[in-house]
Amino acid sequence: MRIAGEMLLGASSVRGMQGSMRAFDPARNAEIEPSFGMGGVADVARACDLAAAAADAYRAAPIETRARLLEAIAENIAALGEMLIERAHAESALPKARLEGERARTMGQLKLFAQLVRDGRWCGAVLDSAMPERVPAPRPDLRAQRIALGPVAVFGASNFPLAFSVAGGDTASALAAGSPVVVKAHPAHLGTSELVGRAIQKAVADLGLPEGVFSLVIGAGNAIGEALVAHPAIKAVGFTGSRQGGLALMRVAASRREPIPVYAEMSSVNPMFVLPAALAARTDALARGFADSLTLGVGQFCTNPGLVVAIEGAALEEFVATAARALQEKSAQTMLTAGIATAYRSGIDARANTAGVTRVAEGAASDAQCAGRGALFRTTAAEFLANAQLQDEIFGPASLVVQCRDTEELLRVAEHLEGQLTATLHIDEADYALAARLLPTLERKAGRILANGFPTGVEVTHAMVHGGPFPATSDARTTSVGAMAIERFLRPVCYQDLPQALMPAALRDENPLGLWRLRDGELARR
Amino acid sequence: MRIAGEMLLGASSVRGMQGSMRAFDPARNAEIEPSFGMGGVADVARACDLAAAAADAYRAAPIETRARLLEAIAENIAALGEMLIERAHAESALPKARLEGERARTMGQLKLFAQLVRDGRWCGAVLDSAMPERVPAPRPDLRAQRIALGPVAVFGASNFPLAFSVAGGDTASALAAGSPVVVKAHPAHLGTSELVGRAIQKAVADLGLPEGVFSLVIGAGNAIGEALVAHPAIKAVGFTGSRQGGLALMRVAASRREPIPVYAEMSSVNPMFVLPAALAARTDALARGFADSLTLGVGQFCTNPGLVVAIEGAALEEFVATAARALQEKSAQTMLTAGIATAYRSGIDARANTAGVTRVAEGAASDAQCAGRGALFRTTAAEFLANAQLQDEIFGPASLVVQCRDTEELLRVAEHLEGQLTATLHIDEADYALAARLLPTLERKAGRILANGFPTGVEVTHAMVHGGPFPATSDARTTSVGAMAIERFLRPVCYQDLPQALMPAALRDENPLGLWRLRDGELARR
Repeated sequence: MRIAGEMLLGASSVRGMQGSMRAFDPARNAEIEPSFGMGGVADVARACDLAAAAADAYRAAPIETRARLLEAIAENIAALGEMLIERAHAESALPKARLEGERARTMGQLKLFAQLVRDGRWCGAVLDSAMPERVPAPRPDLRAQRIALGPVAVFGASNFPLAFSVAGGDTASALAAGSPVVVKAHPAHLGTSELVGRAIQKAVADLGLPEGVFSLVIGAGNAIGEALVAHPAIKAVGFTGSRQGGLALMRVAASRREPIPVYAEMSSVNPMFVLPAALAARTDALARGFADSLTLGVGQFCTNPGLVVAIEGAALEEFVATAARALQEKSAQTMLTAGIATAYRSGIDARANTAGVTRVAEGAASDAQCAGRGALFRTTAAEFLANAQLQDEIFGPASLVVQCRDTEELLRVAEHLEGQLTATLHIDEADYALAARLLPTLERKAGRILANGFPTGVEVTHAMVHGGPFPATSDARTTSVGAMAIERFLRPVCYQDLPQALMPAALRDENPLGLWRLRDGELARR
Repeated sequence: MRIAGEMLLGASSVRGMQGSMRAFDPARNAEIEPSFGMGGVADVARACDLAAAAADAYRAAPIETRARLLEAIAENIAALGEMLIERAHAESALPKARLEGERARTMGQLKLFAQLVRDGRWCGAVLDSAMPERVPAPRPDLRAQRIALGPVAVFGASNFPLAFSVAGGDTASALAAGSPVVVKAHPAHLGTSELVGRAIQKAVADLGLPEGVFSLVIGAGNAIGEALVAHPAIKAVGFTGSRQGGLALMRVAASRREPIPVYAEMSSVNPMFVLPAALAARTDALARGFADSLTLGVGQFCTNPGLVVAIEGAALEEFVATAARALQEKSAQTMLTAGIATAYRSGIDARANTAGVTRVAEGAASDAQCAGRGALFRTTAAEFLANAQLQDEIFGPASLVVQCRDTEELLRVAEHLEGQLTATLHIDEADYALAARLLPTLERKAGRILANGFPTGVEVTHAMVHGGPFPATSDARTTSVGAMAIERFLRPVCYQDLPQALMPAALRDENPLGLWRLRDGELARR
């Protein structure tokens, strides 16, 4: 496998003719070969037209073929071997061990969705028997299944060049649902994107599926992404990135002639409530664990703990002092891109200059161009409640301790929060009563509620919710990680009195696919 | 129970101070007493604040209480007796027998959702066991359930003053999901709305639930509805009405600081494909059945068959001639409102004056102010494909026959269609091959596909989909009729390592609610 600097439009490799760009190594502060040709609106249209042409055939393909596609993609990614890890490392400065873990996670996600496709519950089969004797009018035979929405546009994240990118969770869940996918390559990891794209392209070809099941387009700026979201063939959008970027795509999607759903995972400060008994009992361990979680991956996680809420007192002072020391001992690390490093530094400078905010500690300094170091701030609940900007995410290893006078103020801080991906409770038994008062608010505010852990680390399982109310995501009804992610790309269709000869397999009398089905209100595998 | 002309803001009855309006009897062409006080933005805010204050307590109420609320609403509606039917009849000109059927349907919907709430599958309980021994890191315990989105704004439809209004499908499914509801009364049936609203208000009080679980606001024009959708406490919108009205609410919802989902059921022409063998074999019966379906309820159904697609020839000519005769024999009927009657007449006048369209037949004329009579038009597929306006819905008993030269042209017409609530196939066995070619397109275009029936008549069952791609609705992922409607108002929340003492009942180890749960990927009632 080579990196040619090309887009993948169905089965074709096409060099874009709208200028060129190179990937950038933030650790060496240098561009990386080769140059990539940038595509334009015509290339996007070609990818979308191919996707539309493939959509009916792909969703009609046997369930086993769809599952095999996902597994073949995983196998082809494995076959890329060390080349993939080296390229992703050069493009992201993420450690190779982390990238190997991320590759395993990416393959695990693909395999989870393969298993899910075979299981068939995604299909949501429902059968209501006819009642020919009903008066005044007979009831018809009614059956419903869920089918794919149609072609999906995927925008990968900078911070997960494998698991949230070309073959990441959005692509895996869309392909599992039966939707063709058009990915816009993230400009920060163009080579990684092409390698993984070719792994998918080969899997599509090997399984004899229509070429339009997958395309990868490349472009700079917003024009190509907005053209992709605006194309009539596209029926949904998966995005992980900044609030500004997500909002821009939401606007494009809402202003189409046919508006479409956008699943944008955007910004979250992931509040961590350290309740009094736990804070007193485990001050040091909590402070150190927090500093570790905050600086993991240079803080470049969607679930980074950017906010700590606790009640004032000696224990909180000790927590802050210990966290500060732990942070100061941590060296600066290279961030994903020069742009992210610059934005991070101006973010922490602005926060340090905010009235009512104190800078408690910083990590060790570095002269490296793209380095980021930890930063811990503190403020009072009164200041926090009065200044909405203190809720804004600073992407990177920065966090803000909010000191509350009492439990009532702590509850007010919780109620004041915007939507979050996660909310964490550090609690001992003596804290349960307060935790029970907090829980209804946290349920309204967050997609995932953790007890006595740290939010970084998002398991890929059936129960995972990596979602949450706006602005954490654009659609609180969904998750972008875990099995439930498939539901984003499905819609129900009902069939009334359709003859068996024309009935979709999932709904035929004899249940040829062996699915769990809801028959006259009872769930059964018949 | 009296009609006082008041809004219901939680437990209070409040006369709006922003002017007054009366309901209108379209059959007598006269206003109906009493006058209703119109509310303003402050009244909307009061209703929304009460809803927000009630939201946590209502969703935390026992499942049985929520089910009882729905049943109590049905009982209280029954207790309104003949007064409700008479008022609805005066306000809508719908026949009393039809309104009695609609009342039964409304009560049936409430009871279906009560049963659904008790069943508990809506909760979507998922449990993934911890893996304490996993390397390199243990896996936490992860559990997920679905909870209510929060307060829902409901806009009732003019054409179903009971089943799609104050206690209609949107309200029933939102209350079932655990969401408080704020209804904006439809100005065409203010008295019906107040009566039903009081039935709900009483049920909420009798069950000791927080008053904010239900409110009913009254206002003219768009301002009060837009204020309702814009209020920060509102987390989702249910709407049934015109495309213009739905689009306006979608814009308001999308431009909020926190965008929210809008479930708008808007416009559909419900294409009916009459395939050659069926057309030849059953010409007369199909033509008469079509004319009956078209004029049922003066064509004022969302699923009215506004488009007939068939291949040219003697059988089609006979179909058109028979349908024309059947239509001419039908007398004009009073439409729901003066506005609808006026819009219908200008709609059919405009269509009659469209190049390439021929008026085939009209129903018997009437001098009554608000009367509407059937209208049948025909055109060619070539004209239809060239003029997008021929797809626009004319709300009322009007339909357009599209004559295709051959099967390929018929398939092109299908592909050309916008999103629909329904698509109908009239088929005999000899048509199955063509039907099989049509089906993938119809699945992409419609929420419900019928064979050998007529689309009017929407059963309330588990499998029903009363939804479909834009512009049929604003969100093809959902239905506004049937059990799946509850899913619109739910979102998943994940709990990681939460102690049993704090765990929601649905997710506790011992399954105290006896729910179907997905445990480590296996569905079981344990």
